[in-house]
Amino acid sequence: MRRKALYGQSGGVTAVINASACGVIEEVRKQSATIDKLFAARNGIIGVLDEDLIDTTHESVDAIAALRHTPAGAFGSCRYKLNDFESDRHLYERLIAVCRAHDIGYFFYNGGGDSADTCIKISQFAEKVGFPLQAILIPKTIDNDLTGTDTCPGFGSVAKYIAVSTREASFDVRSMSRSSTKVFVFEVMGRHAGWIAAAGALASDGNNDLPIAIIFPEIAFESVPFIAKVKSMVDRYDHCTVVVAEGARRADGQVLAEQGPKDAFGHAQLGGAAPVIAGLLSSALGYKCHWAVADYLQRSARHVASRTDVDQAYAVGKAAVEMAIAGENAIMPSIVRTCSEPYRWAVGTIPLAEVANVERLLPRNFISADGFDITDACRAYLLPLIQGEDYPPYERGLPKYVRLKNKPVPRRLAALRL
Amino acid sequence: MRRKALYGQSGGVTAVINASACGVIEEVRKQSATIDKLFAARNGIIGVLDEDLIDTTHESVDAIAALRHTPAGAFGSCRYKLNDFESDRHLYERLIAVCRAHDIGYFFYNGGGDSADTCIKISQFAEKVGFPLQAILIPKTIDNDLTGTDTCPGFGSVAKYIAVSTREASFDVRSMSRSSTKVFVFEVMGRHAGWIAAAGALASDGNNDLPIAIIFPEIAFESVPFIAKVKSMVDRYDHCTVVVAEGARRADGQVLAEQGPKDAFGHAQLGGAAPVIAGLLSSALGYKCHWAVADYLQRSARHVASRTDVDQAYAVGKAAVEMAIAGENAIMPSIVRTCSEPYRWAVGTIPLAEVANVERLLPRNFISADGFDITDACRAYLLPLIQGEDYPPYERGLPKYVRLKNKPVPRRLAALRL
Repeated sequence: MRRKALYGQSGGVTAVINASACGVIEEVRKQSATIDKLFAARNGIIGVLDEDLIDTTHESVDAIAALRHTPAGAFGSCRYKLNDFESDRHLYERLIAVCRAHDIGYFFYNGGGDSADTCIKISQFAEKVGFPLQAILIPKTIDNDLTGTDTCPGFGSVAKYIAVSTREASFDVRSMSRSSTKVFVFEVMGRHAGWIAAAGALASDGNNDLPIAIIFPEIAFESVPFIAKVKSMVDRYDHCTVVVAEGARRADGQVLAEQGPKDAFGHAQLGGAAPVIAGLLSSALGYKCHWAVADYLQRSARHVASRTDVDQAYAVGKAAVEMAIAGENAIMPSIVRTCSEPYRWAVGTIPLAEVANVERLLPRNFISADGFDITDACRAYLLPLIQGEDYPPYERGLPKYVRLKNKPVPRRLAALRL
Repeated sequence: MRRKALYGQSGGVTAVINASACGVIEEVRKQSATIDKLFAARNGIIGVLDEDLIDTTHESVDAIAALRHTPAGAFGSCRYKLNDFESDRHLYERLIAVCRAHDIGYFFYNGGGDSADTCIKISQFAEKVGFPLQAILIPKTIDNDLTGTDTCPGFGSVAKYIAVSTREASFDVRSMSRSSTKVFVFEVMGRHAGWIAAAGALASDGNNDLPIAIIFPEIAFESVPFIAKVKSMVDRYDHCTVVVAEGARRADGQVLAEQGPKDAFGHAQLGGAAPVIAGLLSSALGYKCHWAVADYLQRSARHVASRTDVDQAYAVGKAAVEMAIAGENAIMPSIVRTCSEPYRWAVGTIPLAEVANVERLLPRNFISADGFDITDACRAYLLPLIQGEDYPPYERGLPKYVRLKNKPVPRRLAALRL
């Protein structure tokens, strides 16, 4: 008998996570001989625990197709971490009860490293209690810190946004430097991994000689060489741009940004490295500095998404369904780079046990000797990921993004107070 | 005998100031029977004083055409304010000496309210000393605070950037609100005028019901009603977006952002209203807040420019040359709205004396009764200005912006130490 599939979105959303949802839903609709229908959990795993499910069969073909160009999470996402079986046993039992009540045989979780952990635990618990469930992680994270895949859907678009914005702002500060601003400081996401910050360096190339310094979270920040680096660039160009990762920190581990409250995963909520750097340069060198913090703008900027990223996000969603039908469990479809120049890629597979809770940082050979730039190897890695434009349709001057109906599935269980 | 023209860029640059330069240069090239050639001043009026001029005849047709899609100031801009004739007489004499040395008969200054003042003073001084010079201001400011024109080239593109970004970030926070961020705070430019902040409200419309509160610099900020407004939106939607102008201030005049150093025009350099608002909401309501500061990103974002704005920027550049040839002096080409629905516009003319040093703020009837939203009248005014997309060409994943050769004109005078 055909069983149902359940899809959920987890963690920080991206410009292309809905493209993965589109890939999942369109493929499930094609595979209706094998999979009955697709439910989506509202707000990720929280919706499963709440039995707050959405019946995607009410959505039109056009609405589902429009997910491909709509940013953020169409079903809602969550920051929610399951503990181990012992301390959260009632929650695992609830997850299985909900899946059993709705005859869910396939669970697709669209998230990053923490979600891989959730996904594998659910798979293990289902096996433990003898409930047949295939759990597959669909990779998603702007941070590009998932291991076992050449890149993570979501990263290419944020990289493109950062590279484009850095180029544009560098043109701006170059125009102003004679009598006004000398340094533009641009804070980007990245708590531990500098992949996003690295993309800022792409703004400068053979046709655009722009002075850019990157502050990577992987390299302990030291004021003296940094100030010397900025001074040398301003001496030569009269201006420069600094791209600083939100997680940049000193050798003693102190982050440059002010500490904020912690989220459900115990991660500090950061923000504010840019004004710290701008203040440092103003007082040390007397330069007028401007600063920007991109925050959510960078990860929701579907208007300037990378076509490569959109294609890959869709492909891993589609592949997850195909893998489920092929009987796979506790795995993740990955992006495999088969050639860099010209760029070619394929979808591969990796066991979740190799992915969960592992953070892939920028390798040292991707960072220049002085610690403030990327190497040619890094450039060769990054460039293919920002190739191609994939503009959303516009209506009355603004992108036309879809909002789904999100009709709830009738509940079959008593409510659980979380 | 044919005389030369001189063009300069002034004040904060925009996504489309080079489109005006393109209009000027292409029109001068067409009018070579009347105007000998066009020089550009490097870094605006500073370049005139320095006799640091650029011969634009060395630039190819393609390079000039590419200015239309290249952000920031291709010749460099400046923040430099001329005082009155008495205190700065030697500078005015120098300006005229440079124009006389190079047989400049037409001066096109591309800037805002402060530049209008510079432009009119130069025109008056030239007349005073009997040097024939026609000075024309080409309007440019993202702030949209110039009087005598329906809109200012530069504004439409920043408005589109803010509206698009606000929509995208609102989709993001809507996805996250169940277990994470409830409020996204977005700081935009606007020291005194709330035109840019107002554009954030366009993100919400009949097809996209998004809760957005605007903090205008024109409305004295009061914590109590603001907190109540945010609470009511979050109670209803579970999330909201706040767009705050950098110049937002309390009734006693104190700006929310920290005070920075002052620039050459005596304006305070602001930044940091967003973290102030985020902190206020976190402590008053306990919401998790994220915040972004767009700074230069908003005014250099040529990748998402408004086609209407690009067309108007080009048109006022072209018109300035035509007006010069028609014998006009001390005027500014303006944008005249001849119809709102459907939107139609034409280029008009206004004397500089009516433009200089007047700041046009958002009228009260463009702001809702509660002070946190725009009215239908404001929406009807703003919407036409963000219509149409005008994407730059891309090369290897990034916008292909032009850098001119900027070959200097040989100097004819002794150096002046500023």
